[in-house]
Amino acid sequence: MEFIEGVKAKETIGIRSVMDGTHMGKTVSMTGAVHTIRDMGEVAFVILRKAEGLVQCVYEEGTTELDLKSLKEESAVEVTGVVEAEKRAPHGFEIRLRTIRVLSEPAEVLPIAVSKWKMNTSLETKLALRPVSLRNVRERAKFKLQEGIVRGFRDYLQSQGFTEIHTPKIVARGAEGGSNVFRLDYFGKKAELGQSPQFYKQTMVGVFDRVYEVAPVFRAEKHNTTRHLNEYMGLDFEMGYIDGFEDVMAMETGALQYIMRLLKEEYGKELELLDVTLPDVEKIPAVRFSKAKELVAEKYNRKIRNPYDLEPEEEALIGRYFKEEYGSDFVFVTHYPTKKRPFYAMDDPEDGKFTLSFDLLFKGLEVTTGGQRIHDYHEIVRKMESRGMDPADIESYLMIFKYGMPPHGGLGIGLERLTMRLLDESNVRETSLFPRDVTRLEP
Amino acid sequence: MEFIEGVKAKETIGIRSVMDGTHMGKTVSMTGAVHTIRDMGEVAFVILRKAEGLVQCVYEEGTTELDLKSLKEESAVEVTGVVEAEKRAPHGFEIRLRTIRVLSEPAEVLPIAVSKWKMNTSLETKLALRPVSLRNVRERAKFKLQEGIVRGFRDYLQSQGFTEIHTPKIVARGAEGGSNVFRLDYFGKKAELGQSPQFYKQTMVGVFDRVYEVAPVFRAEKHNTTRHLNEYMGLDFEMGYIDGFEDVMAMETGALQYIMRLLKEEYGKELELLDVTLPDVEKIPAVRFSKAKELVAEKYNRKIRNPYDLEPEEEALIGRYFKEEYGSDFVFVTHYPTKKRPFYAMDDPEDGKFTLSFDLLFKGLEVTTGGQRIHDYHEIVRKMESRGMDPADIESYLMIFKYGMPPHGGLGIGLERLTMRLLDESNVRETSLFPRDVTRLEP
Repeated sequence: MEFIEGVKAKETIGIRSVMDGTHMGKTVSMTGAVHTIRDMGEVAFVILRKAEGLVQCVYEEGTTELDLKSLKEESAVEVTGVVEAEKRAPHGFEIRLRTIRVLSEPAEVLPIAVSKWKMNTSLETKLALRPVSLRNVRERAKFKLQEGIVRGFRDYLQSQGFTEIHTPKIVARGAEGGSNVFRLDYFGKKAELGQSPQFYKQTMVGVFDRVYEVAPVFRAEKHNTTRHLNEYMGLDFEMGYIDGFEDVMAMETGALQYIMRLLKEEYGKELELLDVTLPDVEKIPAVRFSKAKELVAEKYNRKIRNPYDLEPEEEALIGRYFKEEYGSDFVFVTHYPTKKRPFYAMDDPEDGKFTLSFDLLFKGLEVTTGGQRIHDYHEIVRKMESRGMDPADIESYLMIFKYGMPPHGGLGIGLERLTMRLLDESNVRETSLFPRDVTRLEP
Repeated sequence: MEFIEGVKAKETIGIRSVMDGTHMGKTVSMTGAVHTIRDMGEVAFVILRKAEGLVQCVYEEGTTELDLKSLKEESAVEVTGVVEAEKRAPHGFEIRLRTIRVLSEPAEVLPIAVSKWKMNTSLETKLALRPVSLRNVRERAKFKLQEGIVRGFRDYLQSQGFTEIHTPKIVARGAEGGSNVFRLDYFGKKAELGQSPQFYKQTMVGVFDRVYEVAPVFRAEKHNTTRHLNEYMGLDFEMGYIDGFEDVMAMETGALQYIMRLLKEEYGKELELLDVTLPDVEKIPAVRFSKAKELVAEKYNRKIRNPYDLEPEEEALIGRYFKEEYGSDFVFVTHYPTKKRPFYAMDDPEDGKFTLSFDLLFKGLEVTTGGQRIHDYHEIVRKMESRGMDPADIESYLMIFKYGMPPHGGLGIGLERLTMRLLDESNVRETSLFPRDVTRLEP
């Protein structure tokens, strides 16, 4: 009988192994994709692309056992050669090629130059060719940083006693209501795709006190803007036994501090590649919604048209104000009007026209919505009725209040928006691997 | 201006803080849900439920400033009292209550006794009341262990150079084909819910060499069995530059070894609560599909009805065989018939009727499907055409082969099934927080 015992070391090595120095002057084997070939006559540079980065391999006629003409870009290869120090090469070394074994070959030449430092291609083209345009080293670095954000979010919350949960995305009814839901037939029943894990994460506060979920959320919004996606990744958490929604903002601030530290410590290469300056998140200003509107109206000489709404331009100006006045890329805007918040938001006991809620703006763009939720059964039923909603429609959600819930609150972060702002991208599609928008369902 | 600076220590403390011993004999504050009240006359036990576990609080008439009669089970409270060592209490301590502050109260009495050790309720009832039945300490422990499985999967792959990805769940076309897809209207276009991240994870191998994703997958299967869910969590990975599909099995074995170690080290309380014995995964036997059928037919005196298919009963017997003969709860069954595998599976060059693929059985149940994939453009086009499929339908997927892909393979693990087998549950619904089946769309 054959047995599988776990991962064995391969003969081929990675970039990090070479960089420890022990392979200098020795013959090594390495796999990778042929990122580009720069033929200089008798010598040529074959650049390998690996997950860890690029590797410069030197082809010398007569020494390397392969006809360079037959080598194609984007072939998968295994090379052998001697490692030599070379300051001008990536990671400070190069491989003097002896052999190149082709593992697999492309059928056609790439339609775009993915090996260029910056691809001079429109977003449209990049997205249409996403499966290959992501092979560009700078394009893919965005998503390595995105990985770091998600890791940081999870690791921090885990350290704070949160439990990870997985809740269904096919639901009987969306948490946010309204018309922006995708509908489907579920074995003859009407179903929707979850607009947020709101009901479920609140439910799980009754079970685990503190929970988080990283999962897709679906919004059938017809806007085709630079900041909307119809499917995006939600970083959600919900926590019980809070003293107020300030506890939720404090937890998010702690998570952001942890994320920025993790990026700095473990994602330095990607930060450098993309020339990213990490924002200072040691303290984040918090300002009331109504006060923020006033500050901006005053400083930028702008009329307040609607005291109960925030236009995208106003958000941008609030971001600018707090950057100029306090040097902060982030600002919590608190106490949003009740009308603008869902029924489960807790009203401010001091003024019922506002809620104990907040948005977090990052360089003038909303990246988080959160707040304290109603925990009392009678109160949530009253609020639903005052909005003409029928409690019977969401009986299984209301069950948690009927049988007791602690004071609690939470938030949802849009991962692609957070990444977009961190990278100073101007379109959220740049930070989604395979974006879904009104016109885009493929790739 | 107010600033938010991160998480501040609260005055209330957790179980772990008490257990460090420094609070013994001192007055502490603690929050929690009133799990149950056991009134013995002058003394009563008020059991608090916290995420970390249960805490025994002692109510003494005259000492505790609260009328016990007014205290309701499932209220959220903050208690203060003196910590005393008590061997018979959970975690070896109890709190002699001074005050109980009620933070929130239920509107009604629980319809099931969640504070019982084992709830004597049918699965039907438990699922209908899921939002509250999960408050049972043993019910919730299942999902804490599930968290550990997912953490272990991610942490191990991260350590092996994998990158985490997030791919869309609304897709133009499912990877597995067939009729078991949920369909929806996407702004006037026909769309489906992803049956697997297959196409996208393969695509990302061309970018990051090794990738993984933890995300929901959707299958509109009409079976109503103990092992099917219509939405479940897929633990997927895909890796490039493999020498064969044995590399994929080795990686899964490594992941399982890591997961079991993590559960043992950090989830001991839950393992004990649920009386779980961790399986030995130091080595996992691997047997060819055709050989497995023979072994089972011979040992259990069973006729081979169809040499190209494996019935659930046969899977169960294969599991039994390897338990009896080799003491293993797991077995890799390899070289599945080509007919039973999707078009992207790589055929065995030695016999095209079989593929370089495998399933992993855990106690006789398939918990993983994986294998090597075709990486050559012409080969995958040929295979599609031989099955009457039109390559034009999935052009954006075929793009990755056209422009070059390394040899690669991967797998998908069903999280709920893996958890189910680990816990020796007889129904997969037991290990899904909010299961979706043919008749169940709520809660």
